[in-house]
Formats: sequence, C-alpha cells, structure tokens
Amino acid sequence: MSYFTEDTSTEVVNGRIGADASPRLRKVMTSLVNHLHAFIRDVELTEAEWETAIDFLTKTGQICCGNRQEFILLSDTLGVSMLVDAINHRAPDGATETTVFGPFHVDGAPERDMGANISLDGKGEVCLYSGRVLDLDGKPIENAIVDVWSDNEDGFYDVQQPDSQPAFNNRGRFRTGPDGVYAFRGIKPVSYPIPDDGPVGKMLAALGRHPWRPAHMHFMVTAPGHRRLITHIFVAGDRYLASDAVFGVKETLIVEYLKTDTPSEVWRADYDFVLCRQTA
Amino acid sequence: MSYFTEDTSTEVVNGRIGADASPRLRKVMTSLVNHLHAFIRDVELTEAEWETAIDFLTKTGQICCGNRQEFILLSDTLGVSMLVDAINHRAPDGATETTVFGPFHVDGAPERDMGANISLDGKGEVCLYSGRVLDLDGKPIENAIVDVWSDNEDGFYDVQQPDSQPAFNNRGRFRTGPDGVYAFRGIKPVSYPIPDDGPVGKMLAALGRHPWRPAHMHFMVTAPGHRRLITHIFVAGDRYLASDAVFGVKETLIVEYLKTDTPSEVWRADYDFVLCRQTA
Repeated sequence: MSYFTEDTSTEVVNGRIGADASPRLRKVMTSLVNHLHAFIRDVELTEAEWETAIDFLTKTGQICCGNRQEFILLSDTLGVSMLVDAINHRAPDGATETTVFGPFHVDGAPERDMGANISLDGKGEVCLYSGRVLDLDGKPIENAIVDVWSDNEDGFYDVQQPDSQPAFNNRGRFRTGPDGVYAFRGIKPVSYPIPDDGPVGKMLAALGRHPWRPAHMHFMVTAPGHRRLITHIFVAGDRYLASDAVFGVKETLIVEYLKTDTPSEVWRADYDFVLCRQTA
Repeated sequence: MSYFTEDTSTEVVNGRIGADASPRLRKVMTSLVNHLHAFIRDVELTEAEWETAIDFLTKTGQICCGNRQEFILLSDTLGVSMLVDAINHRAPDGATETTVFGPFHVDGAPERDMGANISLDGKGEVCLYSGRVLDLDGKPIENAIVDVWSDNEDGFYDVQQPDSQPAFNNRGRFRTGPDGVYAFRGIKPVSYPIPDDGPVGKMLAALGRHPWRPAHMHFMVTAPGHRRLITHIFVAGDRYLASDAVFGVKETLIVEYLKTDTPSEVWRADYDFVLCRQTA
C-alpha cells in the first residue's frame, strides 16, 4: 500500500486503473497522467495558477453552444488539431497534404453543375477554380465528389450569418467525369479572425498572438476506393500565411491566384488533388 | 519561416509566443504545449479519441454550477490537486502534512466555545476531538484558529443539503489559549462518494475506479506568524484509506479513533498540529 507523495504521484494515480479497463483507455490515460504530472512538476504550478486554469477550462466549456465550440478553438490554437491531423493522415510523397477540417463544414450541400458559381450573395471577386482529381499514378479519378466551402467577402461563413446570407452560400459539391476534372466559380476568399471574444481570445492576447487565419478555400474530396482528403488551398501572398492562428498552412497548399482578363471572372486558381488508395 | 509539421509542431506553436508575453506565462504555456504534444505523439491519438476528449471537456464545463465544480473533481481524481498541494506546501520534517482543501469549506463559520459540539442535527456517533497546536520546536501556539468541518452521518456536508441540515452543521472555529490546546465535539465522520453522476463519474467507471473518499475531519489551522495549514485527519480502519478517489490520504494523517466508556461521547480522537513559521 503506497500513499500519494510528490515523488510517487504518477505511479499511484496510474496504479488505480482497474484490471477491467480497456487496454487502449489504460494506455491513453496512463500517458496523459504521466505528461500532466510532468508538466506540473516542470513549472511548479502555483495554487493561484491552478485556480486560473480551473476557471479558464470552466469558462471554455460554458461558452460552447450551437456553432460555438471553444474547446475546438483551444485545440486548434495550441496546435493539437493539426498534430492529430498529421498523425492520422500520414501519406506517401505525391499525395495532397491534409489540413484542419474546421467547424464550418455542412453536410448535404447541393451538388451543382460543373462550373457553377457557389457565391450566391453576389459579394466578392469571382474566381474560377479548376483542376483534376488524380490517383498516385497520375490517373484521373471518375466520380470523385469535390465538396467545397469558404467564407464570403466579409469573412463569414453562411452558418455564422444565417439571417443575412443565402442558405449554402459559398458551398457546393461537384462530381468528376472520366477526365477527373472539376471546375467551379467562387470568390477569392478573405482572411478572417477566429472568434476571439471568449477565453481562447484572451489566451491568444496574453500570449501576444493574433486570431487571424489566412484566406483559404476548403476542399473535401472523396472517391470510391480512395482515402477521404480534407484540406484547404491558401491564397499566395496573404499576410497571415506565416502566422495562421490554427497552424493549418502547408507550403504545398499555397496557390497563386492569377488575375485574368475576363471582367466576370477576375481570378483563377488551378490545383490538382492527388488521393491515396484506401487501405483495408 | 517554418510551417507546422508532425515533427516541428512543438517549436512552431511555441515560436508564436510574442515578445511581450509575461516570462511566467511563456514558461507555463511552453511546457504545457511540450507535454500536450508529447502525449498526443506517444499515444498517436485517433480522430475519434480527439472528438471524445472535446466532448468530455465540454460536458465537464457545462455541468459546473453553484457548488458543483466538475473540473476540480477532474483535477482531484487525476491527482493534479494533490500534486499542486505537495509542490506548494513542502515542509520540514515534524510539520503536520497537508492535504486537499476540497470544495466544501465555508468562510465565516461561527467561533464556538472550546469543547462545543459542532454536530447540530443530532445524527452520528459523538466524538471528542482534542490536541494542541504547536510550532516546530514543540512550543504551544496561542491564538491559533482551528477551523473544522465534516460531513454528517449520511455522508453530506451542510452546503450539499441546505434544506435539510441546520446552517453550519458540523462546522466551527476554535481559538487556542496559551497552552495551545483545542477541543470540540463532532461526529465520527463517514466515508462518502464524490459526485459521480457527471463526466468524471463516467471516467472513473471506465477506469474501473470507485468514487469513494475515506472518512475524514477537515482542519484549517491558522496562527499569526505561521503558515496556514490545510489538512484532514482520517479514521483509521476505513475501507477506502488505500483507494481515496482524490488521493488525499497520508500515513501521518491517519488517526486511531478510540472507543470511550462515556455514553454521551462514544469516541475520542487526539491529534497535535505542528505549524511552520511563515517565511517572508
């Protein structure tokens, strides 16, 4: 029988896990307790700091409602979401890199005709997006669904402004033919701040960090027999590329938006998506 | 300019901390991110597990209200509260050991006459508590305030049952004279479960842990020029001594409750408290 002391804390806490706990839960919780105690020892956390932490976590839970998920913001801003993404989506060279899913995807956006304009509020500069969906051998993938979404010119997704934006504004799904080509019109997206009027915003301010994300278009590409790809393309030249509040930027996802001579189509952005085969 | 990758995640996130952040916040957050990312790498956290964690933390925040503070329960049951206590209350040999404060202390309990009975609901077996408040040299401390509180015979503190227990039931403050002696009557406390109908209770069940705390009487002892002492005494023989849900038990705090021949005073428990000098 050994009681808890400063030296034995980790073994004592982990020693309490019962024989019937699932092996995976045991592994996860044992590691969590190891690292949590090591952190507290490392910084010699004061009682006042502990109280601040309890208060922060409580407020972070209590501000969550509807579309506002402050613990996901916390995970995003501490690099946890991107690390989990990286660990779970290791892919061979040549496959398109992944990035955070984000909280603003909506299931069931309408499937639109190839080339259709997803910007329904008439705001923003029009951009033609096009490219192909390919496999790792460079072969076109037929019947891939390219599900896309972005903010509008004011920096808000439709679900953030249900009263002032048309339903499914800047959202749509497109299905590739035998050539693997996709094409649609949307806007050149704009950078925007993550919601910063809650505990996470206060944390960022205390750390001297801004809440901005560089402009990006979201893509979720699915195809039979292939791994689902969740990613963005980012607008080259955006001032926040090197300081994305949620660490989503990867060099291979930065795309040059090219100015066109077409008055109705100010920009174009070309990008090919390369999917991995699904493994069993 | 370096983007986030699985390998560079920790440096990239910590590299964002601004020059104006306080040195202490920088130290705490840098260590937190180091350990948090190391944990995620160690267990290769899956996306489903990440979602479970987000949901658990959100529910833990949302159940907090009034006397119910689920994040403190989480801290207690993971050994965090006791580790913070241990780090912040290292004391020389001979000083009484500390343990968790707990959520049930109430400021401003009445100062009662030495020997008074704090059990106002007439339930439970009466116990005479007595001993001395001493300094490290063994000298009695005058004008020490011995603030005590416990559950009632049903295992509830008065604040948990404001409608059915008298105000300040099983609470009182006692002031020592020149001999340093304290004495009061209370009940022999009973073991009780921490609230286990929320996320923390579910966690304990999944880990094969019970929610019980061994029976204890709380003490907060203060005296001019000395460090405040927050501790319990535990009832020797309690079945949960080796498995306190919040890890509060220390060997030196276990006290033999002695059966007496006095019908009105079934038990007695003797304990001397030794305080450290306040350091500047």
